[in-house]
Amino acid sequence: VARFLEDFNVGDSFDSAGHTVTAHESEAFARAYDPQPFHLDEESAKRSIFRGLTASGWLTAAVTMRLTVDAGMLRETGIIGMGIDDLRWLAPVRPGDTLRVRGEVVEKIRREGDSKRGTLRVLLHTINQDGVVVMSEIANVIVPVKP
Amino acid sequence: VARFLEDFNVGDSFDSAGHTVTAHESEAFARAYDPQPFHLDEESAKRSIFRGLTASGWLTAAVTMRLTVDAGMLRETGIIGMGIDDLRWLAPVRPGDTLRVRGEVVEKIRREGDSKRGTLRVLLHTINQDGVVVMSEIANVIVPVKP
Repeated sequence: VARFLEDFNVGDSFDSAGHTVTAHESEAFARAYDPQPFHLDEESAKRSIFRGLTASGWLTAAVTMRLTVDAGMLRETGIIGMGIDDLRWLAPVRPGDTLRVRGEVVEKIRREGDSKRGTLRVLLHTINQDGVVVMSEIANVIVPVKP
Repeated sequence: VARFLEDFNVGDSFDSAGHTVTAHESEAFARAYDPQPFHLDEESAKRSIFRGLTASGWLTAAVTMRLTVDAGMLRETGIIGMGIDDLRWLAPVRPGDTLRVRGEVVEKIRREGDSKRGTLRVLLHTINQDGVVVMSEIANVIVPVKP
């Protein structure tokens, strides 16, 4: 079933399943999209400010998207992202960490002259197995109004 | 060679090489991180607001990172991202599109009480083969001060 702007209220929230970032996934992603030594080489990583291997922040963002899609908040409507505000990488993600996402609708916007869709602003926290928030962001999602 | 905060000025810019997003890359990324029908299935995509297959916006963001790393603006210092502001997906990216990045330092920040590092705010535009800006964002990058 599709969901519409009317189906959401400020304060609505969801909790995703977990996803473990393996060393293999972290390395494959970094090799493709963020080939910096502190994501790829143990020795360089130890000498970096991270003091050990870390996953690319963009992998954390991608995993956050995957967990959010799978959480099914928007069901068949689909998540049409307009953009992201205030993305912050707050703590390192290490190979072996298990991430989950908590999302909350923080704003619901209708614009004059647009009768067909509105925007939900959804605050997303990506949290590791120790309860540490490793990333936060606000997703601006376009959601249709009931036909 | 490493680069330091003193090596950058507001207005400094770079242009990256190009990267072609193949249908294979788009599908593999979507399958892993953004498994929505308009990224994976031609027929569903035709019926979506995109009117055809598009790459995940998070793939565009990841490719932007890769092109920025390879452009070498920060050389051996590495790109330590604190976060991203105002990321906007402005136009669809289609399989076969070739993306490049133009970056410009828009702000250089020192904070009282932090003598070791500062922040560069870098405006990044991701541009397709037709000159259309498909994504923009401001990256907040931590850069060390000269020792």
